[in-house]
Amino acid sequence: MMRTKTILDYGARADDDTNDTTPAVRTALAELQGTTGGRILFPKGRYHFWPERATERYLFISNNDESLKRIAFPLFGLHNIEVDGGGSEFVFHGSIIPFAVWDSHEVRLQNFTVDWERTFHSEVDVVEVRAEAEESHASVDLRIPVAYPYVVQNERLLFLGEDGETCALQNALEFDPVRRETAFRVHDSYSLRNTHQARELAPNLVRLTGRFGTIPTPGNLLAIVHTGRICPGIAIGDSSDIEICDVTLHHAGAMGVIAQRTRNLRLTRVQVTPAAHKGRLISTTADATHFVNCSGQIELTDCLFEGQMDDATNVHGVYARISRVVGRQQIEVELVHGQQVGIDITQPGDAVEFVNRHDLLTYHQADVTSVERLNRKYSLLTFSGNLPDSVVPGDAVASTGWTADVTIRGCTSRRNRARGFLLSTPGRVLIEDNYFHSPGAAILIAGDANYWFESGAVRDVTIRGNHFDNCNFGVWGRATIDVLPEIERDRRGSAMYHRGITLDANTFTAFDMRLLKAHCVDGLTITNNRIRASDQYPKGAEVLEPFEATDCRNVTIADNTISSEPAFVTNTEVVAAR
Amino acid sequence: MMRTKTILDYGARADDDTNDTTPAVRTALAELQGTTGGRILFPKGRYHFWPERATERYLFISNNDESLKRIAFPLFGLHNIEVDGGGSEFVFHGSIIPFAVWDSHEVRLQNFTVDWERTFHSEVDVVEVRAEAEESHASVDLRIPVAYPYVVQNERLLFLGEDGETCALQNALEFDPVRRETAFRVHDSYSLRNTHQARELAPNLVRLTGRFGTIPTPGNLLAIVHTGRICPGIAIGDSSDIEICDVTLHHAGAMGVIAQRTRNLRLTRVQVTPAAHKGRLISTTADATHFVNCSGQIELTDCLFEGQMDDATNVHGVYARISRVVGRQQIEVELVHGQQVGIDITQPGDAVEFVNRHDLLTYHQADVTSVERLNRKYSLLTFSGNLPDSVVPGDAVASTGWTADVTIRGCTSRRNRARGFLLSTPGRVLIEDNYFHSPGAAILIAGDANYWFESGAVRDVTIRGNHFDNCNFGVWGRATIDVLPEIERDRRGSAMYHRGITLDANTFTAFDMRLLKAHCVDGLTITNNRIRASDQYPKGAEVLEPFEATDCRNVTIADNTISSEPAFVTNTEVVAAR
Repeated sequence: MMRTKTILDYGARADDDTNDTTPAVRTALAELQGTTGGRILFPKGRYHFWPERATERYLFISNNDESLKRIAFPLFGLHNIEVDGGGSEFVFHGSIIPFAVWDSHEVRLQNFTVDWERTFHSEVDVVEVRAEAEESHASVDLRIPVAYPYVVQNERLLFLGEDGETCALQNALEFDPVRRETAFRVHDSYSLRNTHQARELAPNLVRLTGRFGTIPTPGNLLAIVHTGRICPGIAIGDSSDIEICDVTLHHAGAMGVIAQRTRNLRLTRVQVTPAAHKGRLISTTADATHFVNCSGQIELTDCLFEGQMDDATNVHGVYARISRVVGRQQIEVELVHGQQVGIDITQPGDAVEFVNRHDLLTYHQADVTSVERLNRKYSLLTFSGNLPDSVVPGDAVASTGWTADVTIRGCTSRRNRARGFLLSTPGRVLIEDNYFHSPGAAILIAGDANYWFESGAVRDVTIRGNHFDNCNFGVWGRATIDVLPEIERDRRGSAMYHRGITLDANTFTAFDMRLLKAHCVDGLTITNNRIRASDQYPKGAEVLEPFEATDCRNVTIADNTISSEPAFVTNTEVVAAR
Repeated sequence: MMRTKTILDYGARADDDTNDTTPAVRTALAELQGTTGGRILFPKGRYHFWPERATERYLFISNNDESLKRIAFPLFGLHNIEVDGGGSEFVFHGSIIPFAVWDSHEVRLQNFTVDWERTFHSEVDVVEVRAEAEESHASVDLRIPVAYPYVVQNERLLFLGEDGETCALQNALEFDPVRRETAFRVHDSYSLRNTHQARELAPNLVRLTGRFGTIPTPGNLLAIVHTGRICPGIAIGDSSDIEICDVTLHHAGAMGVIAQRTRNLRLTRVQVTPAAHKGRLISTTADATHFVNCSGQIELTDCLFEGQMDDATNVHGVYARISRVVGRQQIEVELVHGQQVGIDITQPGDAVEFVNRHDLLTYHQADVTSVERLNRKYSLLTFSGNLPDSVVPGDAVASTGWTADVTIRGCTSRRNRARGFLLSTPGRVLIEDNYFHSPGAAILIAGDANYWFESGAVRDVTIRGNHFDNCNFGVWGRATIDVLPEIERDRRGSAMYHRGITLDANTFTAFDMRLLKAHCVDGLTITNNRIRASDQYPKGAEVLEPFEATDCRNVTIADNTISSEPAFVTNTEVVAAR
C-alpha cells in the first residue's frame, strides 16, 4: 500500500489565486527522497505555480532549448511516485516547467490539466492586408486580443509575458478560424525576430510590415510564437517506467511531453488540446510528444493531439557526426543540431553503429568502453576493438541499444502545424486505429545524418486500421505517408535504408491522391486499404499512382480499393512497384 | 621540487595560428587532478585558444553575467599548481574564459599576456554629427575600422564576432583619442540594444541615429560594448591562496580578474591595459579587478589598470534582502541585483549581520546552521538561536566572516570609465603610493542595501602617499574621494555607518577642488596632504571646502597645504568639520 498525502498537508491551498503551490510540492517531494515511494494527491481544485521559488536545474532537453530551468514538480532521483491531480487544474505563470522527471523510476502522473495564465504564443486576427512591391512582403493589420498583451517599441512588435518581459517575434503561421486548422497550403513565416516593422494604428491594432512565408488572408488568424522552446509541459530524462494518464495539456512553451534516454513510457488519454473555452486555437508551441533515444516500450493509447505548433509525435535516435578519428580505438564525435547539444548519445556498455553519410547504411558496429564529454557539443568515444579504416570524419554514429518498440493506438492527430507521427526506430512499430487529419504527412519515416541528425532506420512498421482523413493540405509533406530517408540520389538504387513497412486495411479520405511516397525500402506491403475521394479542399494535382514506391525492393501493392462516393471501385493494383 | 612539464609535451605548438592549445591544456590539467601539484610551462611563443573543444561549466560569477561558459584553463579542484606562460602571448578566439579557478588552492598564474583576436567591444571614430530636434538625439556618422567587423541589418548596426555571430549594441562611451581617456564630462549612452536606427553610407561608414547620453563630438572615439559580461579574463571562486604575477590582460569580455568567496589573493604587476600596438584605447569591457565576499588578504602591488570600461577595483560583500521571516530561527533571503544571483552568500558555521535598510546599521548578528538554496535567487537560512522581532522583510543580511584586509600599493589607475578603487570591507585597508587619474572618484567608499546590494561598512582605511592627479573630470563621482553610504537623509545625523578613515600625506593635483565628500563616518582624519592647482581641464565649480565632511563624528582636518604654483601656501584648516 502506497503512502498517500495530500498537497494540502504541505501548506498548499486550492482555488486561491494568490497561493503559490510550488513550495508545497517541493517539500512534499523532498520528503519522498530516499524512500520506497509515495503518492501525492491534489484535492480537486485550481492550483497556481510561479517560477519565483521553484527548484532550478540546467537541463539539456533534446529538440528543445537548453537553459537554466525553473521546475514546479522536480521529480529528480525518485522511485515509485504517483502524482494524482484528482481532476485539478494546474495553472502556471511565466517561465516554469510543470514537470521534470530525471533519474527516476516508476513514476505515474495522472488526472490533471495544465495551462498557463499567459501563453508563450499569441493568436491575432488578420484584419487588412496590403501586398508590397517586393515579393512576399506585405503590410498586415492585426487585431490583437487583450489576452495577448503587447507593446510596440522602436518600431518592433513585442509581446509581453506575465511579468512584463518583452518577447520578440520568432515564427508565425496562418490558421483558418472556421476550420480551426492551418490555412490551406500556407507556408511558415520564420525568423521574424527584429525584421518586421510595426506601427500601432490604435490600441490593439498593429500594422506589421515585412516578409511573410505566405501573405496572410484577412479573416484568418496568425499564430505567433514569441519564445524559444524553453518550457515543455512534461520533460523526462534518464528514467524508466513512466506513465502519464488522463492528463490534458492546454499549452506549453515548447513540447507537451518530451522524453529522452528513458525506458518504457506509457501515455494514456493524454490530450494536447487548446483551451477552446478561452478562445484559443493553439495548444503547445512545439510537438505534442517527442521521444529521443528511448528504449523498451513506448505506448500511446487513446490520446488527442491537436492545435500544437509542430508534429504530434516523433520517435527517433540521434546521429552524432564523427569529427575526428583520434586513434585506432577512439573517435571524437560532434552533436551538430543546435537542439541536440548536451544530450548523451551513448554510454559504456552500449554499442554504436557507424553509418555512411551519403547512403546512411551501417558499415560497422563497435562496443563502447568509455565516453568523455568535452562539452555539450563534443565527446570522445573509446571502443573495445580497433576500428576499420573505413571510419572517417563526416560519417555518423548512433546508439544501437537505445531504441524502442512503439505502439500508438486509438489516437487522434489533427489541426496542428506540420505532421502527425514521425517514426525512426528499428523496434517493432504498430500504428493502429488512429485518426489523422494532418496538414502535412500523417506519417513520416525519415532518417538523416546531415541536417536533423535524427536516426534511425525502421525494421518492422505496421500501419493498420487507421483513418487518414484529408491529410497533407499544407506544405509539410510529399504524401500522406512519406518515407523519406535523406539518402543521396545516386545511392538510392542500392541503399535499402528502411525495411518492413506494412500499410494494411486503412481508410484514406482524400482530396489529393498522393497517399504514399517511399524510397529505399526493402519490404513494402500495401494491402486492403480503402480510398475515398473527397471534395473538402481544392482538388490536388493529378497523380498516376496514389502509392508511389521508387528505389524499393520487395514491394507488394494489392487489394486496395478506390471509390468516388457513393460507390466503391475495386482496384487491386493501384500502382505497380518499380 | 615541483614537477614541471611543458605544454608542448601535450601536443601544443607555439606560433602556429591553426593549432588550438585548449585540448593540450585540458589534458595537462587532467593529469594534475588528485596529485600533490605541478607546474605547466609554456615555452615563449604565441598560443591560440578556441572555445570549440573547451571544458564547459555553468558559472555564476558575481557582477558578471551567468551562463554556460567555455573555459581554456579549467583549474577546478586542483592544489599547488603553477601555470607559467614564460612570457608567451595567449590569444583567445570567441566566447571563451581564459582562466577559471574554482575549488582550488595554492595556484600561481604568471608571465603571460592575454588578448582576443576579435574584441567584445568596437572602437569607432565620430566623423560628423547632426543634433536632432529631440533633446539628446543625434545622427552620428561613424567610421568603423576594419578591425571591428559589422553589418547593418534591418536598420540596426550589429557588430560581428569572429565566428560571424551578430552582436547588438549595449552601451557606448566617448573617448578623447589625444588624451586617451574619456572625453571631459561625457555621460554614458546606455541601453542601445535595438533602439538606434542605422544606415550604411559607404563601406565602414555608418550613420547611427538615436539618443545619446552625451551627443558625441567629431574627432572623438566611441567605445561601443556589444556583448554582456560573459568572458572575464581570470575568474576565481571558492578557492584560496591565489597569486597572479606579471600578467598582462589586453582585453576581456567582462572583468579582468574577478574573485569571489576566495581567501588570500595576491596580484603583482598585473597590467590591465589596451593593446596600444593594435591601436586600441579600451582594455576590458568591465572592471579591471573585482573581489566579492573574499577573505584573508587581498594584495595588489605595482599593478596598472587603464582603459577598462569600468572601475579599477571593487572590494565588497553582498547584502541579501530578507524576503520572508519563515520562523523564529529561519528566514528566506533574496539576491536582488541581477548580477549577484547564484552567489552563495553564507554557509553553515559562518555568521551574518542583520542591517536596517534605511540606515544600514547592524542591529543583530546570528550564527548560520544551514543554508538551503531554492534557486539562484532565493535561499533559506536557519540560525542557531531565535531571531529578535526587529528582523523584518526588506532589511538585509551579509556574511561577517567573508571579509578581507586589503593592501593596494604602487598601482596606477587611469584612462578608464568611472572610478578607481571601490572599498567596502570592514578589514584593514591600506591604499599607499598609488597614482590616480580617474575620470570619476579615485576612491569610492559606499555601501547600500537597496540598489547595488554591495556591503559593507569600513572600519580601518588608510589612504597614504598617493598622487591624485586631476581626478573626477567625468561624471562618476561627487569628489576625488567619495564616501557615500546610501543612507536615507533623515537618518544620517545618527547613523555612523563607516569608521576610521585616514587620508594622510597624499598629493592632489586638481583642476577641481572637490577633493573629498563624506557623510556618516565616525573618525575621519585628513592630515598632511598637499594640494596643487592645475589648469589641465576647465576650472571646476567654486567650492568652499576641498574636504567636505557632513554628518560625521570625530573629524580631524589638519596640516594640509594648498598651493597655486609655484609657491605653496600652508593651510592647516582648509575646512572645519561640521
